[in-house]
Amino acid sequence: MNSGRFVVFEGPDGAGKTTAMTAVAGRLRETGREVVQTREPGGSTGAEAMRSLLMTETLQHAPVLSQLLLITAARVDHLDTTILPAIQRGAVVLCDRYVDSSYIYQCRLGGVPLDVLDQLNTLLKIRMPDLRLFFELPAAVALSRMTARAEKNRFDLHNEERWLELADAYRWRAEQAPETVRRVNAALSLEEVVTQCWEHIHESG
Amino acid sequence: MNSGRFVVFEGPDGAGKTTAMTAVAGRLRETGREVVQTREPGGSTGAEAMRSLLMTETLQHAPVLSQLLLITAARVDHLDTTILPAIQRGAVVLCDRYVDSSYIYQCRLGGVPLDVLDQLNTLLKIRMPDLRLFFELPAAVALSRMTARAEKNRFDLHNEERWLELADAYRWRAEQAPETVRRVNAALSLEEVVTQCWEHIHESG
Repeated sequence: MNSGRFVVFEGPDGAGKTTAMTAVAGRLRETGREVVQTREPGGSTGAEAMRSLLMTETLQHAPVLSQLLLITAARVDHLDTTILPAIQRGAVVLCDRYVDSSYIYQCRLGGVPLDVLDQLNTLLKIRMPDLRLFFELPAAVALSRMTARAEKNRFDLHNEERWLELADAYRWRAEQAPETVRRVNAALSLEEVVTQCWEHIHESG
Repeated sequence: MNSGRFVVFEGPDGAGKTTAMTAVAGRLRETGREVVQTREPGGSTGAEAMRSLLMTETLQHAPVLSQLLLITAARVDHLDTTILPAIQRGAVVLCDRYVDSSYIYQCRLGGVPLDVLDQLNTLLKIRMPDLRLFFELPAAVALSRMTARAEKNRFDLHNEERWLELADAYRWRAEQAPETVRRVNAALSLEEVVTQCWEHIHESG
């Protein structure tokens, strides 16, 4: 695994994606690899500005298709500015959420037809991840983690019913089974979660 | 002309589109028609927020494809919130710039392939105008008008060279000749310009 890689962490809120990603990044850096940690929506100056707009009350009332296009505009900036140059330098890019989150939030939950996003990705030549780590865990574990963090932003504040719907949507997306999806049992300890990620990253590269 | 209509005013800065549009709106209202005057980018709460973002230094440095997607996100919100409901009520919608400005700024001048925007419009089912009024005039007239107004925003501040390039791009787009394009001699007096618009609107409806 010496050329650039693009690894995405996906899963419902409270799955511990961000914590695990940071730990994986640390291990990779110990091996001498350049690691770029990033997130969506966001990950570049322009895309973070678009994320801030997306979080406003006004944009939360915009048509879902409009939100999807705004997220895609952010993705194109993120790819051009952050992800693609890093891959080209030979870095490992670890990204917290990516295109699968769009399939889940805007298509599965928001009602935009799947083939609209498929075609958009093809038309815009959106770079797909080399590996997608899908974090899976029971609702009770996720909710207790979220309560402990008391997170309040749009992507984290859900009641249990909403969370279950979201977890179900992630399972649905994983079952659509792009070859690059690997499941991670995220109910285990951080160390065990990181080990799973580590093995998937090495097996896939 | 009793059903809803969608009329777009296009042309380089200083062509007098906005002034003529307001005068045309007044005449239409005198006939008892509901008229909705709007503009792009913008024209709805969400789209105006996206316009403001687009005008920032940060977004002016974003990849043109990302800017085009942001403008398209704004267009979808504008269509859903403002334009389509008005057309459905039977109103005449007069819009200052629309999809042709994207073909000109982001494709012709910005380098995004034409077929990307064509396919995007098809994929997203972007409603095309019933009539596109292309304002044409010599550079000297436009520049003296712009100097008189001393306008300084992104879409208005151009030097002569830039203006000529823009006017050329508008001619190029008019020559691609969607059937719904009508040319307006915008160097004439306001009254004469309004009369031309009026005739085109009535002939086409």
